[in-house]
Amino acid sequence: MEVITGGVTAAKGFKAAATAAGIKYKDRTDMAMIVSEVPAACAGTFTSNLVKAAPVKWDQEIVSEEECAQAVVINAGIANACTGTQGMEYCRKTAEAMERVTGIPAKQVLVASTGVIGMQLPMEKLVFGVEAMANKLSDSITSGKEAACAIMTTDTKSKEAAVTFEIDGKTVTVGGMCKGSGMIHPNMCTMLGFLTTDLCISKELLKEALCEDVKDTYNMISVDGDTSTNDTVLLLANGMAGNAKITKKDHNYQKFTEALNYVNTALARKMAGDGEGATALFETKVIHADTKEHAKLLAKSVICSSLTKAAIFGHDANWGRILCALGYSGAAFDPENMELYFQSKAGQIQIYKDGIATEYSEEDATKILSEEEVTVLADMKMGEAEATAWGCDLTYDYVKINADYRS
Amino acid sequence: MEVITGGVTAAKGFKAAATAAGIKYKDRTDMAMIVSEVPAACAGTFTSNLVKAAPVKWDQEIVSEEECAQAVVINAGIANACTGTQGMEYCRKTAEAMERVTGIPAKQVLVASTGVIGMQLPMEKLVFGVEAMANKLSDSITSGKEAACAIMTTDTKSKEAAVTFEIDGKTVTVGGMCKGSGMIHPNMCTMLGFLTTDLCISKELLKEALCEDVKDTYNMISVDGDTSTNDTVLLLANGMAGNAKITKKDHNYQKFTEALNYVNTALARKMAGDGEGATALFETKVIHADTKEHAKLLAKSVICSSLTKAAIFGHDANWGRILCALGYSGAAFDPENMELYFQSKAGQIQIYKDGIATEYSEEDATKILSEEEVTVLADMKMGEAEATAWGCDLTYDYVKINADYRS
Repeated sequence: MEVITGGVTAAKGFKAAATAAGIKYKDRTDMAMIVSEVPAACAGTFTSNLVKAAPVKWDQEIVSEEECAQAVVINAGIANACTGTQGMEYCRKTAEAMERVTGIPAKQVLVASTGVIGMQLPMEKLVFGVEAMANKLSDSITSGKEAACAIMTTDTKSKEAAVTFEIDGKTVTVGGMCKGSGMIHPNMCTMLGFLTTDLCISKELLKEALCEDVKDTYNMISVDGDTSTNDTVLLLANGMAGNAKITKKDHNYQKFTEALNYVNTALARKMAGDGEGATALFETKVIHADTKEHAKLLAKSVICSSLTKAAIFGHDANWGRILCALGYSGAAFDPENMELYFQSKAGQIQIYKDGIATEYSEEDATKILSEEEVTVLADMKMGEAEATAWGCDLTYDYVKINADYRS
Repeated sequence: MEVITGGVTAAKGFKAAATAAGIKYKDRTDMAMIVSEVPAACAGTFTSNLVKAAPVKWDQEIVSEEECAQAVVINAGIANACTGTQGMEYCRKTAEAMERVTGIPAKQVLVASTGVIGMQLPMEKLVFGVEAMANKLSDSITSGKEAACAIMTTDTKSKEAAVTFEIDGKTVTVGGMCKGSGMIHPNMCTMLGFLTTDLCISKELLKEALCEDVKDTYNMISVDGDTSTNDTVLLLANGMAGNAKITKKDHNYQKFTEALNYVNTALARKMAGDGEGATALFETKVIHADTKEHAKLLAKSVICSSLTKAAIFGHDANWGRILCALGYSGAAFDPENMELYFQSKAGQIQIYKDGIATEYSEEDATKILSEEEVTVLADMKMGEAEATAWGCDLTYDYVKINADYRS
């Protein structure tokens, strides 16, 4: 597997475009489009929130009912959530506009929205946007990058990742882009992820690969504990790599899932590190837990703790809060027989052992905690299971961004 | 039932004292003591965190093993959590110091600590504190108030409540004090509540009354979602009101549970409204839910949402976040058939109905949201169950307090 530059246009036969449709933001792009040259097998995972945005409902139907999909149209600024029957109508109209200008059947057009809940989309602007983008679709790395920029809301950086690997002499590429950066647990306003691959694979296995992988990647990040109404991850596989179709879980399927996991992990980490107001990526690795489920509960509990997140912002080695968060996670362990470490580029220190603090140096701890990527390592000393979760620190800017988000 | 001024010394036969023992804070009191003239029936509820502070373990044993308790010794500044075997030793030494100076058997002395986790208590100072307080115990309202002030950590206000009611011509009093104000869910660093009553009641019913009531009061508040290692609510009933002992769930028991609920609700609201950094008490009332459990899940989900809390700080009627939080609560409902209202002293407005926003005035909404107590009313239109939860807004000061709490 080789890591390459690029995102949704990295794989063969995928084009992208972006435009400034003036939906809500000024002086920036706010719509993006991904198109496959040929119909592609499609898988999707969506928010578990009972309140689902119209595009989520639209996509869920396509992903479950249709054999293929060929395009995705995305807008930032307005989430098209809590918009009643009008919201669903807007999804249909967007797909129909796409059919009119590109010939791709409306039932193969996925849509995604992110932004403020409860506001109706300016439908005319959306249609103009679709028309503008259809005329400048390109498979260049630049167009992929432009699409990744257009879907940002409170994100400060665009987020792309891509890898290639070989199957029977054919080069297969998996690429993707995503956006955060509030209501991430994964979550509203919202987490959107778009993955493309030229792999030839059955729809069933594509779905299984995606559903399994999100559990260890996107579902292991949290910015603020709020699960969005719009969370969507879509994966299109158009088969243009020319490999023999993957129809069972052989070593080629294994290669694909490894590539998918690399791309999703890279995107998930980018999303957590660019959480609203964040100054640091805050990672928690749990090792030697008794079960995978417990390892996940423990890791996620720490990265979700407001108090721990605020301490990370303050570069304060307040390990008591970490132990506290492990303690209320719901997973059983022995607080008297586990160990805690802080890690970053600046080094590693053991901070807790045998039920009490070690005699660590506060100065060393502060140095380690002042890096842009900070890791808590929790050794549960129980078994062989492990899990990693990603979050960010809690800062003044998180409050600032969210106290007046709509204005 | 009549609301009266006072706290833990309001009920007959209860005395309190406070002192500046110099445990961690300077220029303020940091220890308190409550003593009953006679042995009292005792009930307690404690943190569900797997990591339990030493005083929690000490008290759990007394509450379950002993017939009576007669005193509580409390310190603020250091939580005596994650302190190994030494921590338990300090609980025992505190109780023994109490026996030495007051004659109350050590096994009838409850202890409670709140503050930083992982630091050892300065035992000598604690013993001096016990001696100093034993000499100035008083049943005055002032001494109760002084105790309520001494147990504060990041609290900005002391928290007391008391009521009286009649049983067969005898006046019964229930009073209490508590402290927050971070790691509240209820929670570490920590929620401590101390209740006293002169009611004569069996230990079994006292326990049942307390355990039932905390579910609707302390367990319905959250400041930051972090469940503390030290959460403790203790209730002492010394029987000095002179009523015939309550041994069954008759109308007298009912009167007592109503009084207890009033005091606990008042204290819980004070704790939420004085959450770390808070500028407003944020209440969510859920009505017409299908079950009580769902009503609680829904109400608590809203007051725990970081995004909603930040919007309340910004006086921003961002109702989409409320709907989002209801949606991920885990309780089933129909988003197309429910209603949302904002309420405060400044009025009430309906904000969401039939799946979309009403045509409310943003100006009116901002006015309502600018009060010190703000309520979201969610009408689920499903059944007859209801629940109320209390939280606070998420502010710059929450981040400030917790980014450098230990320094």
